Parts: sequence; C-alpha cells; structure tokens
Amino acid sequence: MKTIDMIIKTRHMYTLEGEGVGYKENQAVAVDRGKILAIGHRDVIKKEYTGEKTIDASDKVVMPGLIDGHMHTSLATLRGLAQDVGNWMMHGVGPFQTSATDETRIAGAKLGMAEAILNGTTTIGEDGDCTDEICKIIERFGARGNVSARIREAKNKVYQPGELYEYDENKGEKALQEALTVHKKWHNKDNGRIRILFGPQGADFVSEKLLLEVKKQAKDKKTKIHMHLSQGSRETKQMEMRYGSRTIPWLAKKDYFDENFIGIHLTDALDEEVKVVAERNASMVLCSGSIGIIDGIVPPAKRFQDYGGSVALGTDQAPGNNCHNIVNEMKLTALFNKIKYEDPEMLPCWQALRMATIEGAKAIGIDDVTGSLEVGKQADMILVDLKHPSLAPLYVSPMRNFIPNLVYSAQGSEVDTVIVDGRVLVENREPKTFNLEEIFEEAQAQADLAAEAAEDKFWEINGVNAVYMKEDKL
Amino acid sequence: MKTIDMIIKTRHMYTLEGEGVGYKENQAVAVDRGKILAIGHRDVIKKEYTGEKTIDASDKVVMPGLIDGHMHTSLATLRGLAQDVGNWMMHGVGPFQTSATDETRIAGAKLGMAEAILNGTTTIGEDGDCTDEICKIIERFGARGNVSARIREAKNKVYQPGELYEYDENKGEKALQEALTVHKKWHNKDNGRIRILFGPQGADFVSEKLLLEVKKQAKDKKTKIHMHLSQGSRETKQMEMRYGSRTIPWLAKKDYFDENFIGIHLTDALDEEVKVVAERNASMVLCSGSIGIIDGIVPPAKRFQDYGGSVALGTDQAPGNNCHNIVNEMKLTALFNKIKYEDPEMLPCWQALRMATIEGAKAIGIDDVTGSLEVGKQADMILVDLKHPSLAPLYVSPMRNFIPNLVYSAQGSEVDTVIVDGRVLVENREPKTFNLEEIFEEAQAQADLAAEAAEDKFWEINGVNAVYMKEDKL
Repeated sequence: MKTIDMIIKTRHMYTLEGEGVGYKENQAVAVDRGKILAIGHRDVIKKEYTGEKTIDASDKVVMPGLIDGHMHTSLATLRGLAQDVGNWMMHGVGPFQTSATDETRIAGAKLGMAEAILNGTTTIGEDGDCTDEICKIIERFGARGNVSARIREAKNKVYQPGELYEYDENKGEKALQEALTVHKKWHNKDNGRIRILFGPQGADFVSEKLLLEVKKQAKDKKTKIHMHLSQGSRETKQMEMRYGSRTIPWLAKKDYFDENFIGIHLTDALDEEVKVVAERNASMVLCSGSIGIIDGIVPPAKRFQDYGGSVALGTDQAPGNNCHNIVNEMKLTALFNKIKYEDPEMLPCWQALRMATIEGAKAIGIDDVTGSLEVGKQADMILVDLKHPSLAPLYVSPMRNFIPNLVYSAQGSEVDTVIVDGRVLVENREPKTFNLEEIFEEAQAQADLAAEAAEDKFWEINGVNAVYMKEDKL
Repeated sequence: MKTIDMIIKTRHMYTLEGEGVGYKENQAVAVDRGKILAIGHRDVIKKEYTGEKTIDASDKVVMPGLIDGHMHTSLATLRGLAQDVGNWMMHGVGPFQTSATDETRIAGAKLGMAEAILNGTTTIGEDGDCTDEICKIIERFGARGNVSARIREAKNKVYQPGELYEYDENKGEKALQEALTVHKKWHNKDNGRIRILFGPQGADFVSEKLLLEVKKQAKDKKTKIHMHLSQGSRETKQMEMRYGSRTIPWLAKKDYFDENFIGIHLTDALDEEVKVVAERNASMVLCSGSIGIIDGIVPPAKRFQDYGGSVALGTDQAPGNNCHNIVNEMKLTALFNKIKYEDPEMLPCWQALRMATIEGAKAIGIDDVTGSLEVGKQADMILVDLKHPSLAPLYVSPMRNFIPNLVYSAQGSEVDTVIVDGRVLVENREPKTFNLEEIFEEAQAQADLAAEAAEDKFWEINGVNAVYMKEDKL
C-alpha cells in the first residue's frame, strides 16, 4: 500500500478525455506531488493507495477545473460601471479606467481571481498591467496562471470617436522591456504553474515596428502572443485610418498568425478572415458575456471551430460582463449560438463544457498539463455539489442530466471544492488560500477612491449611465 | 410608540416606484399584518414603531420580491432532460412527460418552487396540472400564487410532426369543470395571496367551442386567461391545418384579446400580430431562457412594449430552461435583446429589473398588491446580500452599480432573505417554510421512477440526446 498526498472518491466523474466528456462511475483519483497518479474504480484505488488526505465526494461530481482564457481581473474594482452603453471604451469604462491606479488594479485582481476560483476556474488567463503583482497574487492564491504581459504604445486618454490613437515610442519600448523582465522572472515558475505570454493590446494600440519586435521576442522565448484581434468596429476604423486595411489581412501579410498566436474576440472579423486565422493554426478566445454586453454581438467562434480552430472561453472584465464566472460563460455561449443560428441544436452543452475545459486548454496551449483528468497531468479539478436545487434531481439513465444542468441551470456557487496542482484552494466553499473579507475591504476602499477620482469626468462625458443616474434608473 | 410585526432597516433600498427604480438611502420599512405600513428614513421609523422582529439589513439591499409570470414547476422532476434538441415537445420532454404521474408533478412543484423562492421569486406564476395540489404547496410554502388551472382537450400522446392533435371533448369539459372547482376553492384565498386564472394550454390544444366557453367563464368569474400564444412554428402549423389561419388573427376575430388576457411566449408572432395583442391591452410573458433553449429565438417582447403592452418574465420549465431563477432571466433578457438588435444600449438593466418586478406585476394583474415597495401594498420583498464577489465592490456615487451587477453578474444565490405578505420564507438563505433535504429526496425518488418509465420510449425515439448518450457526450 503506497501513501500518497490525496485520494478523492466519487460516484460520478467526468474526465473530459477523448472526444466526449469521459463519464465514469464509482471512481477514485489518486493525487501525488501535484499530479494525477492514478484514476480507477474506487475499490481498486483504495486497495493500492492510502491518502494523507481523503475526500469523499459521493454527493459531488469530480471534473477538470475550468479554464478562463482571457480576463482583466485587475478591472474588477470597477465592476458594474460600464454596461448598457454604446461606446464602452470611452463612455463606459473610460472615466473610471483613466483614473485608476496600480492599487485599484491590484485590489481588483484579488477580487476577480477570488470570484473566478470560487466559481470553479483553476486557470487564470490574465491579460493586463501590473503583471509582476498579478503573478504574486496567482502564486499566493495557488491558481494556474496563463498571464499576458500587456504591451501598449498608445497614450492613455479618452479619445473621441474617429480620433487616431497617438503612439509613444518610449512607452511601447518600456512595456516590452517590462514584459521581458516579467517573463524571465515568472515564466514556468512554481513547477510550470505560471506561464508568461506577450500581450500586445491590439494591432491598433501598438506600432507596426513594435508588433514585429514582440513577435520576434515571443519566438525567441518560446512563448505565445495573446492579443485582442478584430475586436470591434472601433479597432477596424483605427486600422483603416492608419494602414488603409482591416486588421486580419494586415497581420496575415506580416505572417503574424501561427500556432503561437491566440486571438481574442474576433468580434468584427469577416468569415474569410476567421478562416485565415483558424487555418494558420492560431486559436481564439470567445468572451460571450462581455461582447454581448459591450457590442450586442455573438463572435464567430462556431465558424472558427468549423475551420478547424480551437476556442477557449473568457470572462474579460467586470466593468462590462460583469463577472468572472466560466459557468455563466458556458451558458451564454450555448444560448447565444442557438440564437445566432436560430437552431436549438447548435452548440450543445457538452461542446460548451469542452470549450471550458480540454478545448480551452488546447486553445491557450496548456493541454499538456490541464483541461482533463488523465494520469500524468497536473491535478486541477473541481468538485461540484449535487445538493443544490439547480442540479436536482440527478438522472444517470437512460440519460445523464448533469452536464445539461451544469451548463444551463447552475450558477457557479455549486462548486464546492477547487484543487490546483493537487493543492486545495477552496473546500466546502471556504477559501483556503485567500481571505474574502480582506479582499472585499480592500476592493471597497479602492472603489471609494476610484469613485471620487472619476466623478468630474463621469458627469462631463455624460454617457448613458450618467443620464440614467439623473433619471433614478440606477 | 406603536408595536408592529416587523421593521427592516437598510442603507440601500430600491422601491421600484415611479418610472425608474426608486432608490432611497438609509431607509426602514415597517410591516404589519402582511402589509407595508410605512417607509421612511430609518431614524424616523425607529422613533415611531417598535417591531416584534427587527432585521438589520445594513449590508444588504432591500427591494421588491421578484415576479415569475409563467412556470411549470411541476416539470422540475424532469430537469435537464430536454435541451439541445430540435423538436423539444416530442423528442425532448416527450418521452419523459408522457410517463409522468401526479406524484412526479407534485415532487417537481415542490422542488421548482423551493428553487424559485431561494432565488428571490415571491410570486409563483404556475401554469399546469394538479392545480389543487399546487395551491396547497403554495399555501404551505407561503409564496404568492398566480395559478393557472390548465385546460387541455388534445389527447396526451407523442404526436409526429405534422400530425393534427386529436381532441377529446370529455377531457376538455372535465378540465374546465376542475378549473371552476379550483377557482371556487382557492381564488383570493389567504387574504388574496392566491389567485386562480384559467389556462387553456393554447389555441391548438383546445377546440374553438371550449376556448369560447373558457373566455365566458373567465369574464363571469372576474379572472384572467393565461395562455400560450403563437408559441412556435409547431402551433402555427396546427392552427393552419385546422383553421387555415395563424393563431393571433384567428383569436382576434373572436375578440379573445383584452386586459384580461395574458399571452405566453409569442415566439412565432409577426410584428403586426404583436401590435394587435398589445393594442388590445392584453399582456405578455417573456421566457427568454426557455425559448432560447427550445427554439433559438428571442421573442418580440421589446416590440410588445413599444406598442404599449406590459411584459412579465417567466422561467417556464426545468426540462428546457433549465432553472427557475428570475435573476438569470433578467440577465438573459437584457443580453438576448442587445444581440437581437445588435445594440448594447437595448434593454438596459433597469428595464430588465422592472420587468421582473413592477412591470411584471402589472402584466399579470397583481400590481395592486405587489411589485414595488409602497405603503398599503403587501410586504413582498427580498434582501440581497452585498457580501458576495458578484456584487462587490459597491458604488453609490457618481454611479450606482448595484442594479447592473444584480442583472449582469449576480447568480441568484445572493438573495439572503425572502418575505411574502410580511412572513419570512427564507432567512440567511435558510428556508423557514419548507425542508430542502426532504424535497431533494422526494424529487430523486420520483426521478428514479420517471427514468425507468421513460427508458424504452427514450431509446425508441432516439432523439439527439439519445445519440449523445451513446457517444459519451453527456
């Protein structure tokens, strides 16, 4: 009998191996030194191993942790300040974001990550500023981190619609140097739990020269580029004004798309552009909730898949989504695509679940270590409590109803236990690696400062939400 | 100093009075004998009244209870068995529903109502069978009930696409008599907390003769008709086969639409048909999640409102939604309409909230007693806990972010306390009037029977979900 770190026993396991969902009954998973050592019938595992810790998950489903491919948790301090508005960037988040400080962002990152982890996210696909601080938080909270170091050359200001962004070469160069430093410090740290990608904000926010330099550096450092791509008519307009070309054809000419490119959103991409990106083996992140709120658009993820590309889900940001909850993204993704194609059979629940797990892991290049429960992979998993009205009753035959209910009925709060690299981050819904009360306090203190700093700009811009405030509609 | 039943103090109250959301700071509400006796600054209320019970809701938002205008909670035992399928009625819920018994339905009603109440619903707009039993459960759980007694004349069987429904005159007559009995027994019972409406299942499920008789009876009894209306191409086809006319023009000719008609879904209604129904002062219930899943369609609720009609939200049923959660319906309603019109300013959060409260109450004809917090109305209210990641941080100025976060970020589980007619049904998320563990057990026992009864039919029909089962996709 071998003593190992942890054994989890369950009646219902979804491994997400193969082309389906990998359902197995009466299983146990043996975890040692962060990895999945064995999966088998629980009686067999019980005979072979003793766990330092044993979790009896008989009333729970054991499944892979959820993958969030694209998030700006650092904006979570600004939750709920930018929706129902036509010009999200300038009139929605604008007045608040331009007043934000590093302290706003750090408090937000803690809040957004805590929220995501409590909703079952094990991989944080952060994209943003303060990357070094972000990595420290990920390290402490114990999540898997797939962090893009933001590179932006455009000056920070509230631009008018149609105003070409001003570049600041020094700013761009500084951002690249910081990305390289962060990469050196954090990439593959903690036994590979944290990976650093390069994140030019978009082809409109970075000069051609710097974009090409970033591509070269990513190749040198054997990492990926994670970049907003054709993210809306605003970007398309900037590209057409500057280069006389739409984003995707322009980048394609510069050989920007390959298996190390992750394109975010593709909101404004034409069908032939989607084809180009997918066929060059780049991948895509779909942020259904965010793009639904910000643009009223369902991005062409289904077409991207049809052309052979892999798609991950992402929660984007709390001002304009307004949550970091991949359970919610699965639901919205399935429903939005049914509506887009007027077809209830479009994007069934199991496809949404695969996008949130193994397909998502593949899209962001971490399926070698996570996204499914398989021997040799890292032990990233969640236990979902079946004793919730949203998941009851349970059918096993003739049809299993857990995945339909997880995707279409569950809220996120059914996630009971969260494990990353074999370490328990949340158990019985209690965080073990962070203090929620402290996180709320810090976020509230920063929100109070942000509110004060943004006040004049908010009223001056007089966007839709300012009007609603005056009309007692908020 | 007057002693009354209950005082609730809060920092943040939304009354939903007027045309907006009725935000008020540092308020207290005085409740006595089921009614709202006074609302005012908390210091003032404190001086005038002593409560037998006092709730300090400083970290919570006080707002009206949510209205669910259309639900089949009796189907909740079949949760998650009918989605991702093109022919929902015959190939989705069909094999399970035709095997269901009254015990299946009663167990389902308890589960579905418990779920709804825990997510903040105070008015249960049940439509279905076993009405007498349903009323007993509502009475015991303490919710407000707006119950439609189902009248169906078509025989219960799995019809093939294009097969005209067979009527059974005796069945129809029996259903009407039962509806009249239930009406007599329950209408306006419990101080008016329960109301009985007449619920012909649809113009395709009931003969012309019986439809007209129901209309006459509803007028006599001074109650409303609650009926599926133009609920999809399936219904339209039935009507065209039988009468050579689409549903709405056919019913309009028979003067079926007036202020006592509530039309459900209007999924397949043409714009001129929507206009007819709205302009005759009938109202509408919008079931965004259900129709999204079942049909991939966003019903024309926005147009209905444009033509001056009132619209309530509804959760429909758990096999094909898959939850009874009006918080979820607010989110889907706002998002689906943004997508339908490709406009992020369409259906802002405050409109979704009004549809779930005061507008919804108006649509189903109970705004005299509920839907907003006003002196003289019944005390139907919920307390929403702000100490959740989905609702943090809180902004009060320059912009209040609670309603955006309630609509776009909240899950439903943030609802802490539920009060109907001044009675506490849920407090600190603990049900006071029902036992969740018993409800789960009963639902599971019934589900196990339903699974067995449906098995042969499920495989015989071999719908999409049967195929997915064989392919390890569920």
